[in-house]
Amino acid sequence: MSDDSAFSLKRLLVGKPIPSSMAHHERLSRVTGLAVLSSDALSSVAYATDFILSTLIVAGIGAFSYAIPISLVIAALLAIVAFSYRQTIHAYPTGGGAYIVAKENIGATSGLIAAASLLVDYTLTVSVSISAGVLAITSAFPRLDVFRVEMCLLFLAILMVGNLRGIRESGRIFAVPTYFFVVAIGVLILTGLYKYLTGGVTPINAPLPSNAGHAPLTVFLLLTAFANGCTAMTGVEAVSNGVPAFRPPESKNASATLVAMAVLAIGMFVGITVLAHAYGVIPSVAESGVSQLGRAIFGGGTAYYLIQAATTLILVLAANTAYADFPRLASIVARDRYLPRQFMNQGDRLAFSNGILVLSVFAAILIIAFHGDTQRLLPLYMIGVFVSFTLSQAGMVIHWRKTKEAGWKTSALINGFGAVVTGIVLVIVTVTKTLEGAWIVLLLIPIIVALFKATSRHYDHVASQLTLRGYQPEPRAHNTVVMPIGGMQRAVVEALRYAETLSDDVRAVYVDIDPKATEQIRKDWETWGGRVTLVVLPSPYRSVMEPLLAYITQVETDQPADYVTVILPEFVPAKWWQHLLHNQSALLIKGALLFRPNTVVTSVPFHLER
Amino acid sequence: MSDDSAFSLKRLLVGKPIPSSMAHHERLSRVTGLAVLSSDALSSVAYATDFILSTLIVAGIGAFSYAIPISLVIAALLAIVAFSYRQTIHAYPTGGGAYIVAKENIGATSGLIAAASLLVDYTLTVSVSISAGVLAITSAFPRLDVFRVEMCLLFLAILMVGNLRGIRESGRIFAVPTYFFVVAIGVLILTGLYKYLTGGVTPINAPLPSNAGHAPLTVFLLLTAFANGCTAMTGVEAVSNGVPAFRPPESKNASATLVAMAVLAIGMFVGITVLAHAYGVIPSVAESGVSQLGRAIFGGGTAYYLIQAATTLILVLAANTAYADFPRLASIVARDRYLPRQFMNQGDRLAFSNGILVLSVFAAILIIAFHGDTQRLLPLYMIGVFVSFTLSQAGMVIHWRKTKEAGWKTSALINGFGAVVTGIVLVIVTVTKTLEGAWIVLLLIPIIVALFKATSRHYDHVASQLTLRGYQPEPRAHNTVVMPIGGMQRAVVEALRYAETLSDDVRAVYVDIDPKATEQIRKDWETWGGRVTLVVLPSPYRSVMEPLLAYITQVETDQPADYVTVILPEFVPAKWWQHLLHNQSALLIKGALLFRPNTVVTSVPFHLER
Repeated sequence: MSDDSAFSLKRLLVGKPIPSSMAHHERLSRVTGLAVLSSDALSSVAYATDFILSTLIVAGIGAFSYAIPISLVIAALLAIVAFSYRQTIHAYPTGGGAYIVAKENIGATSGLIAAASLLVDYTLTVSVSISAGVLAITSAFPRLDVFRVEMCLLFLAILMVGNLRGIRESGRIFAVPTYFFVVAIGVLILTGLYKYLTGGVTPINAPLPSNAGHAPLTVFLLLTAFANGCTAMTGVEAVSNGVPAFRPPESKNASATLVAMAVLAIGMFVGITVLAHAYGVIPSVAESGVSQLGRAIFGGGTAYYLIQAATTLILVLAANTAYADFPRLASIVARDRYLPRQFMNQGDRLAFSNGILVLSVFAAILIIAFHGDTQRLLPLYMIGVFVSFTLSQAGMVIHWRKTKEAGWKTSALINGFGAVVTGIVLVIVTVTKTLEGAWIVLLLIPIIVALFKATSRHYDHVASQLTLRGYQPEPRAHNTVVMPIGGMQRAVVEALRYAETLSDDVRAVYVDIDPKATEQIRKDWETWGGRVTLVVLPSPYRSVMEPLLAYITQVETDQPADYVTVILPEFVPAKWWQHLLHNQSALLIKGALLFRPNTVVTSVPFHLER
Repeated sequence: MSDDSAFSLKRLLVGKPIPSSMAHHERLSRVTGLAVLSSDALSSVAYATDFILSTLIVAGIGAFSYAIPISLVIAALLAIVAFSYRQTIHAYPTGGGAYIVAKENIGATSGLIAAASLLVDYTLTVSVSISAGVLAITSAFPRLDVFRVEMCLLFLAILMVGNLRGIRESGRIFAVPTYFFVVAIGVLILTGLYKYLTGGVTPINAPLPSNAGHAPLTVFLLLTAFANGCTAMTGVEAVSNGVPAFRPPESKNASATLVAMAVLAIGMFVGITVLAHAYGVIPSVAESGVSQLGRAIFGGGTAYYLIQAATTLILVLAANTAYADFPRLASIVARDRYLPRQFMNQGDRLAFSNGILVLSVFAAILIIAFHGDTQRLLPLYMIGVFVSFTLSQAGMVIHWRKTKEAGWKTSALINGFGAVVTGIVLVIVTVTKTLEGAWIVLLLIPIIVALFKATSRHYDHVASQLTLRGYQPEPRAHNTVVMPIGGMQRAVVEALRYAETLSDDVRAVYVDIDPKATEQIRKDWETWGGRVTLVVLPSPYRSVMEPLLAYITQVETDQPADYVTVILPEFVPAKWWQHLLHNQSALLIKGALLFRPNTVVTSVPFHLER
């Protein structure tokens, strides 16, 4: 791909389908790896600070002073978790997603809980990132806010179509929005700090939201603000999932990338939070905090619009990473038979397409249900993330205890600390967010796990019914072919000719409703019947199906050791809507015969030309 | 059916399925015929007056004095149309629906316009009657108004399920609500008049609706009120459609019934309108005019609740008649190949079930879209009715000119007058109602007619492709059977045994992706292969479908004069949801082979037990 076309928007969004065999050729350097794998983690700084502030505002603007200490605690947590994930990178150089780590070390159920959490998490990544990306647009152009949901769905549709066609995961393309965002936020923070320190900053004076007030500043409120800020930590695990995508030495490169990502995320998050406090940002559903900062610092010129563009781009890119992660995880889970085989990748893109469609449908439901409002979607977001964090870290502790590699105690200690810390955050998130909507996720995860297990149980049952051990097939030599006919026409004659090749015993069955029509059939039979026997069935009640099914039953009873093949002519229409106009009786007969053993229904296609 | 059970609510609503052969045994007397065929016409008096008044109110309460003259004009019209339809009864003793009369006398397109109008009209009959029936309930129990849409959908569901199971159209059952309603309204009108004439009536003082005001009393407003009142005329045609259902002499009995119906409808409509004026009724979405009259005249006691119950019952019954009319008309249109064959009745109830489902879905959409508000649904109602009235009467004029029976000139004059009068009303309805929502119907009717014609054209094309005239089937003797396999298990072995019965040339095709698995297949083949040849295909790109399809193409090319039969084992799961977990590759292969000539795909069922 040339560099020219690399920047063409169409290529970026829709791409050209590429053979999967090419995917292996392109390995990630540290620079492109950071761009490809960190958009989720870095982009969350676009909304994490807002989410802290919009909680604290309930206790009045005075409570905003708690934002900076809260952000520092979260920064420390982020460092701990990143450090903890470095262990995973080295232990699982083939990619250590939470599902694999939890399944291998804790047990199948834990793995499934992690997988369910991650699938929910990826869906929310799409909804949250897209709605936050749209908020960056509507902050700059408030008149577009009425189209908020429509714009979200448009981005979703573009991502879906692009991924269905196969976006080329070229590091160079992904590098553009990521580094654009890092540079834009970097310039924003530095300029903002400079202006603040040199004086001359007037508070933004954004309108207060309706719930702003003087509610008491309780511990619960602070914990809620803290839990909300932890959205900044989402996406940290991406690098550890993607280790095999790096150039050798994979683990070392991945580890360095993880550190770089953590440093950037912490720097941007704390920087934005400090600036938000300094400039008196009051985020709302109408304008994001970053947008307010941009206006205040750059006065709403080109620089401001560039920041908004960078924010939208990286958020859409973050949503796009979920489009790679969701089908990949679904494929791994399907390989273990916990999800239908449709999700299992077997060399073609089809399995991934199913994952992409499922992800899109659920993300769209979330966007519509929550009106594309980031602040209302975020409470659902963190439970899945922290369940998988905790299970993954806890799994690593058990891993070290099993392997007892050199230095395993230190490693176990690091991961154990990570597990405890993320576990505590999980408890805080659960307590503070359940009533804000997270109950949906708390309900969904066990339901999904139950579906996983039901699927697995079913495939087990099937395998036991399919085993050849001790199997003795009944000898069946003869095949009686029965073909119901309703009149003589080309499709019927062609199907008769086909039926003749199958057996020496072919019987065409006609139900006599109208004596005149029956006489005509008998006459036609002399011309077109060939060596097929015509059986005319009486029907005193003018029903067609009943005598027909009774006759087939009779054939089955007469020759119990035979196969019975029922031949039906089937129209293959030239246009899809014409399907509605044909093959109704064929469908009925098929349905009625579906559950009979040793009875095979064969449709002989007749192709309509228009 | 005993008289005891005749009054059981369950029997009334769900009934017992009966063989259609019994339907002919029970013919209608005049008394039962009136009950069965007039519920639509009579029930419309429950809302027609309201609809006049709620238009006039825009020009202030003073404009109400126009309601009585308007109702008298409509009464005269109703008499004219009824008189005109008596001609149809005598000319079409086998049932003269607008579709048949217009088609036979004017032309196919006119017939289709009439059919489309009637199908729309029947759908609206269901929505309007049910919502008006629910209004009778919520008028009595205003607290239930919040469940208006839910109650409408509940009635709709009951009617749908009842009709799907097959309501026994017993005149005795239908007689109860109809005569109950006639008696209830009769008593209401007589008592109301008596109380009014003997003095002592206080005006009702219902709250004025928000749009009540002093808008000028224009001609357009009067015409709108008139058009609205014409809802009282809906359903007049029912008797002429149902002539063959009467006891002999059919035409005479039907004619007498039509006269009785017209007299009752006119009497009740004018009576209610006069009373409404006398008592100062101000109908609203919260309380119907009849309910206000009932409260004022009977003081809200048992008599009042009986009137409301009678109103609800007859309206639900009117909706139920559409459940008989819609599938019957759809079946007639389908017999002429303008609708898919699924709607054509062929001795079983299935075709009617399709009509019932389609009617229910569209009625539900209307109820939900218009929030079950009768006043908002009514503007859509009349265009379909008056299109079919006009076409039917105009068709009769042509009928008389063709037949030139004794006295044909008088008959043509009567029908001609009817056609002109209903045509004028149609113009008034179109002009006054288009902007109130009737544009939907004006758009729908041509769309439906276009669909009718497209369907008919398609069936014609198919017939021309199926003709045996000049047809010379190519001689094909040999059948090559190809069976793709992905591994050895019972379902595969059973399908192999079946395949062996079809041809001497059976080839199992296995795509080699993993050399170890391929070796295992070769080994298994010695035990289970029988006389089937194993073909192993290489797949350098690890794709399964491509080599498979290429092989089948090769077989077709090698033996162009042969049939190719592709055998696929198919799992028949024990539970419906398990379908999601199976047969994906089979479906893919079927889809890929669907459009190949001389290639037949056969699924050999393997029944899963759990």
